[in-house]
Amino acid sequence: MSANPDLEEGTSLTPRFDANGLVTAVVTDAASGELLMVAHMNAEALGKTIASGEAWYFSRSRQKLWKKGETSGHVQRVVELRVDCDQDAVWLRVEQQGAGACHTGRRSCFYRSVPLGQTGAVRLEFAEAKSFDPDKVYRKP
Amino acid sequence: MSANPDLEEGTSLTPRFDANGLVTAVVTDAASGELLMVAHMNAEALGKTIASGEAWYFSRSRQKLWKKGETSGHVQRVVELRVDCDQDAVWLRVEQQGAGACHTGRRSCFYRSVPLGQTGAVRLEFAEAKSFDPDKVYRKP
Repeated sequence: MSANPDLEEGTSLTPRFDANGLVTAVVTDAASGELLMVAHMNAEALGKTIASGEAWYFSRSRQKLWKKGETSGHVQRVVELRVDCDQDAVWLRVEQQGAGACHTGRRSCFYRSVPLGQTGAVRLEFAEAKSFDPDKVYRKP
Repeated sequence: MSANPDLEEGTSLTPRFDANGLVTAVVTDAASGELLMVAHMNAEALGKTIASGEAWYFSRSRQKLWKKGETSGHVQRVVELRVDCDQDAVWLRVEQQGAGACHTGRRSCFYRSVPLGQTGAVRLEFAEAKSFDPDKVYRKP
């Protein structure tokens, strides 16, 4: 049993934001189950996602709130939002608009496989081709 | 284009561990696509997972390496391991041994839904029942 049973067995949403004020957001395609991306949300991004049903995140590199698709048009409509046992991660099942979720031009950010059963230096294998041209989709600032 | 194109378009596994030496590990059921859990890996956990094909993690709360299933028997056999574009997250598609992945007794840690389209206090909805008794599966230290 957790030291705080309400956290795990209660019905209150009480996100456990980390030292930077963030929870982890795991995003899968609602139809295929494919993992599209992992991002982060602060309280504002989570609130906007819940209220609007479209995915908002917080960029750690740019230190700002962003709506997925605000530049690319690749909006994510949230079909279902779940929270994990200790409330430091959320799961978004989304309908991904446009050709993909990844800024490199793939549908998923997880386009490279790591071969198993070896030690030492690992050579990644590409598992997914580009589905759009990121230079055309992401306008430069 | 990233400042480091090799990170995104290369075939070298060069994980970007955070300030605590960790990457995020997203774990889905290889058959159903269901999100089972989110955990963390340090370099040793990642190396052991790649070498053995079974999932190892690093516990932030206990500050120690652990093999999933070492107490519960609920081992995760890794069917496929992928890494994301900026190499700070990995995706494990696993065969989950035993009744579930979550220490609360559920198959998935993400057993509560967050209703959408509202502001203010949110009441979570239980989306998955317990599938095992955690007090019997996790022996107390």
